[in-house]
Order: sequence, then C-alpha cells, then structure tokens
Amino acid sequence: MKHDVKRKTDQQLKVMADAPRGPSCTRKAKHSSCCMITAKGDIHDKADKRTSHNGSLLQQPSKEDMHRRPGLFFWTKHFVCGVRAHQDVYLNDLPGNDFNTIFRSLPRFLGNLKNEIGSGFGPCFFFTGTPGSFYDRLFATESLHFVHSSYSLHFLSKVPEGIESNKRNIYMASTSPPCVVKAYYDQFQTDFSMFLKYRSQELVTGGRMVLTLLGRRSNDPTSKECCYIWELLAMALSDMVSEGFVEEEKLNSFNIPKYTPCPAELKTEVEKEGSFAIDRLEVSEVNWNANDDKLCPSDELKDGGYNVAKCMRAVAEPILASHFGKTIMDEVFRRYREIIADRMSKERTEYVGFVIYFTKYL
Amino acid sequence: MKHDVKRKTDQQLKVMADAPRGPSCTRKAKHSSCCMITAKGDIHDKADKRTSHNGSLLQQPSKEDMHRRPGLFFWTKHFVCGVRAHQDVYLNDLPGNDFNTIFRSLPRFLGNLKNEIGSGFGPCFFFTGTPGSFYDRLFATESLHFVHSSYSLHFLSKVPEGIESNKRNIYMASTSPPCVVKAYYDQFQTDFSMFLKYRSQELVTGGRMVLTLLGRRSNDPTSKECCYIWELLAMALSDMVSEGFVEEEKLNSFNIPKYTPCPAELKTEVEKEGSFAIDRLEVSEVNWNANDDKLCPSDELKDGGYNVAKCMRAVAEPILASHFGKTIMDEVFRRYREIIADRMSKERTEYVGFVIYFTKYL
Repeated sequence: MKHDVKRKTDQQLKVMADAPRGPSCTRKAKHSSCCMITAKGDIHDKADKRTSHNGSLLQQPSKEDMHRRPGLFFWTKHFVCGVRAHQDVYLNDLPGNDFNTIFRSLPRFLGNLKNEIGSGFGPCFFFTGTPGSFYDRLFATESLHFVHSSYSLHFLSKVPEGIESNKRNIYMASTSPPCVVKAYYDQFQTDFSMFLKYRSQELVTGGRMVLTLLGRRSNDPTSKECCYIWELLAMALSDMVSEGFVEEEKLNSFNIPKYTPCPAELKTEVEKEGSFAIDRLEVSEVNWNANDDKLCPSDELKDGGYNVAKCMRAVAEPILASHFGKTIMDEVFRRYREIIADRMSKERTEYVGFVIYFTKYL
Repeated sequence: MKHDVKRKTDQQLKVMADAPRGPSCTRKAKHSSCCMITAKGDIHDKADKRTSHNGSLLQQPSKEDMHRRPGLFFWTKHFVCGVRAHQDVYLNDLPGNDFNTIFRSLPRFLGNLKNEIGSGFGPCFFFTGTPGSFYDRLFATESLHFVHSSYSLHFLSKVPEGIESNKRNIYMASTSPPCVVKAYYDQFQTDFSMFLKYRSQELVTGGRMVLTLLGRRSNDPTSKECCYIWELLAMALSDMVSEGFVEEEKLNSFNIPKYTPCPAELKTEVEKEGSFAIDRLEVSEVNWNANDDKLCPSDELKDGGYNVAKCMRAVAEPILASHFGKTIMDEVFRRYREIIADRMSKERTEYVGFVIYFTKYL
C-alpha cells in the first residue's frame, strides 16, 4: 500500500459542478456522480491483459484532468477508450436528483466519443441511470467490474445525531464540543463502511474502484484545511442572525452532512471491511478558485470571491434553502462572497482532494 | 400461433397516461414505458421451472388490468411477484423524456411492493433507467430475459417521408392519397423490423416478450377504428384554418408519426425477422372514454368529451405545440372536446388494443 502524498498548487476543483439538484437534496446527503461501470462479454479477458501489461485496468488520465473534470462522463470516457468491448455503464444518483439533464446530454457525448474513437465503435456500450443511495445495495452480486465515485463520498447519508450543542456552527469547527466531532466521525464510519460493504458485494473479485473525494491531511477533523470554507459560510449566517435576518435557533439547528476524512481514517475502514486493497492514495491540494490558473480569465472569472461563492452555492444552496427558506439565499451568498474575497486576498486557500485506487481481492 | 380475437366493451385504456413528456417529444416518435426486464443469477432456472409448470414465465395479470394500468411498473410488479430472485429491471424511454418523475416514485413503489410481498424481500431487484430509442440497440447481446413495451410501439421513429400530398389530414385518412398510406406502412415496416431485430439480439434464447400497442382489425390502414380519433383532431385544426387562426400550410405540413398495424402486418414482420414465435395475439376493443364504466364517476368524469380530449392532449400536445405553437393549444383542445362529445353521443367509439406474447426461439 502506497500513500503518495504530494503538493500541487496548480490544480483545480469544481466541487459538485456536475451535480444534479432535486427536491430531495435537503438535509440529507446530496451525493452524486457515482459512476459504476461494468463490462460484459470479452472485456474481462482484455482487461486482464491490460492489467498485466500496464498495471491498471484503466487508461490513466492525468491527475490534473481528474481534478478539473469530476463529471459523470469523465471516467467513462477513459474506460471506454481503454477497453473496446460491450460495456454497461451505470450512472448512479439519489432518486430525487436530476437524471434528465444527464440523459439529455448523452447523445452528444456519445457522438463526440464516436468521432474521437473513430469507426468500428458500433453498439459497444450502453448507458443506464441507477437511482438509489450508494450507502445501500444498488446492483446484483458480483455484477460490476469497475466502480468510480466522483466528489460525492465526503457527503454523509444524514446529519449526525446528537449534535445540538454545535451552536453557531454549521459544520465541525475549532469551537465545536468533542461530542459533535465524535458524532460526525461515527456517522462517517457507519456510512463509509456501508459503501465499502455494498460495493464489495457488487464487484467481481479483481474488480477495481477509484474514489475521488475531499479529505484532509491533518489528524484533526476540525483543522482549517477542511472546515474553513464552512466556517466562513457560518460567519455570513451568524452576521445575519446578529442583524435579525435569521433566527438564532434556525442557525443553531443547522448542520452540514459532510465529513472529510484523513488517510488513516479511510485506511481503518478499508481494513475493517477486509475485502479491498488500497493500491494507491494520492493527496493533492486544490485551489478554492477553480479559475485561478486560467491564462486569460474574463473579468468576472478573475473575481475569486465570486467564483468560489458561486461554486459553493451550487453545492450548498439546496440544503440551506430547505432549512432557512429560499428568500434569503441571495443575501447569504452575497455576504459569503465578500467574506471569501477578503480571506482569499490575505491567505492561501485550498481544498485537499484524495484519489484512491482500490482492488477487490476477496 | 393463435390469434385470439375477442370483443370486450367493458375495458378501459389510458393512452400514454404514464408517459413522461420532455422537449424532445416533437415530431419525432414519443414512445415510452418500454420496460425491459432482465433477471440474473438463479432466476433462469426458476423461470424455466415456471415455464414448464405454468406455460408462462409470467404471473399472468388479468386482461382488464393490462388495459387499465399500462404504466412502467405494472409488468414489473407481476414479474417480481412471479419470480423471487435477483432481478435487474431496466426502464427505457427517449433521452429527452422525463425519467425524474419515474425515479422519484420508485422508493414508494418499492415500499409498497415490500409490504405486499412480505419479509424476505431483501435486495432482490434493482431498477435502472435506460435512455435511448427502442428502435436502436439498448442493451448488450443476450443480456435480457424479458421485454415489455406498453402502448408505445404504435409510435413511429419519425414522420414518414414523401407525404406532402396528405393535405388537411394529420394522419392517414380515407381521403389520403395511396402514396401516403404506403409511406406510413413502409415506415412501420422499417421501425418494427428494427425493434424486433435489436430485441432479438438482446434477448437470451427462450426469452419472452410481451407487447401492448394500439392496432386495427381491418386490413385497411385508413379504417375508422384506428384513424377516426385523429380525423376529429384534424377537423378541429381545419376549422381553425377556415377561421384564420391557423395557416393552411401549417396544417398541410403536419402529420402524426404513428401506425396502428393489423395482425397480418405484425405477423409478416415477425416472420421476416425470423427469431420470434408469436405465442398468442389478443385483440380487444377499448372504450375511448377510460371512465365510462366507473360506478360513481364525478360530474367531470361523466363528461366523455372532456375525458377523451384530455387523454389525447396528454399524448398529442407536445407534438402539436412544437409545430403550431403553444398559444393555440387551449383552443384546439376546446374545439376537439366539443367534436368528440358530439360523436360519442351518436356512435360507438373504441380503440383496438393488441397484447402479443412472444418467445425468442432462435
């Protein structure tokens, strides 16, 4: 097992940029973009040959690409290009989220892919959408050859119970009581162990899994690298409480269902589950502002506060709106943008992203 | 092969009542509710046992039920109740149609099914949505055990070419030139043969297929039993042309992509394709007014013109609106309702519905 911890400051992250949003995205987890890929027929032989030749089932994309394009189709494309055979591609999301947008973009995706791959592409793979939580069983036993989840697994299945004392915070923070931190960790353990258990049942022996998710390097789950961006959002909400726009009780009863684990915590769950080997774990730092290294960004895209607040709005608005109401969302994110812009001008602001490669060996 | 032609006047039909509608439902075919069911693992053995025991892979629903409940889940439920094993259920529709509504109703459907079946239900089947045209390949070779299409196959993949002479009609009519009738039949042959060819590739040998669709008993494709309801719609549009609300050219260039075959035409295509046996073909007459035999219908539901126009609006509005514009739709269907009510008060008005049972023997 190799933990390849690297520092890369030129990488980008669009958090949940491709994530569909639906009415079910309330206080429950909003995980999406889990692309389960299974290949039938002669693909297994070809995959084995590729494995012995390249040491990987996949045509390896660059790490820059992986952080830039966390969408549903990204791994699919690399998988399809790598192995030409009949393939079933299952795109998973919660039943309440939006599959229509993904399905409507399929014909163009397939057209482009056909142009890219060239003739002889034929009817070689088949897309389906699988509605359901990936913290539950989704597929028949040993029916998958490859699983990928893209920037979703840091969302928990629900807000942890027993965290009423986490007042004026909306996530774990340095001011959170220890019982809150423990409740978050317990929920992560429950959820991630379920994910591993069910994927293990669904994958064939020798099947591969690649997970990308937000994490942290520190052993402290309240460390700045993973909690800061939410603390700034709590700050915007707290200001609105002080000014009478939001009831204090509303803020005190709101928490984000999210957990960004450290490598040791991930490893513990993988070892407890017992059927996966971690082939590699890469840790990268990714700038909050996805457009930070664009050569010629537009004036709007030069505004880091605008970019990051917009990106976070795509992730958090459905959850916030279901609790605080839609009407205050513009004001919340206006204030959030100002706070972010101020902090970005004064300090280095980065997420920590993990890419983890697994093989199911049992 | 047995053609079981029966007359049943007490049956009901909700045409495409469950059909999702999306922006792609324009002049192209709007086929939906094609439920492809494949069962993995030990289901094949069980299915074989059932076949030899019952003469059918399916727990046979009543014919009344089949016409009353043409929705996506109906056959699924009967299949699931009939064979308890891991099952993959693929729900197919065009990529532009609405999968979200179906997926959001899945948890309740599964909950009810669990209550109905009782304990031990477990993770025994898995739903996915498959976006794509059923006139194209959708699944891997020999990956399906059962296919069902519910009231969709009378929609063609496109409006037939070369029917510019079909003036003041919107479908085949007694006044249509012979070349129009031939063009419609040619398109039906092309489409239905493609459907059979691709499903044959996807089904295992011994796999079953049940198709429900609108048809006709007469050999004349312009006969009243299949064309009358569209002639009345053309009448409403034609009145609006005469009164200057619709341009004549707009009406002349509009045609519905639909074909209601007779048993002999279906049989011809099945024999040409060569890998299916028709085990049974049932022909039923179904009242235009789905609420006609309700014991205590509300005042609104007593109004046959209202019911039938509303039902037809669900089917035809997306196609009409994309050609004539949304603004005149209320007026079109107000006039259509009046015309339908008048005719229903004077004559017997019925659709002809087919249920066809196939086995893939090659």
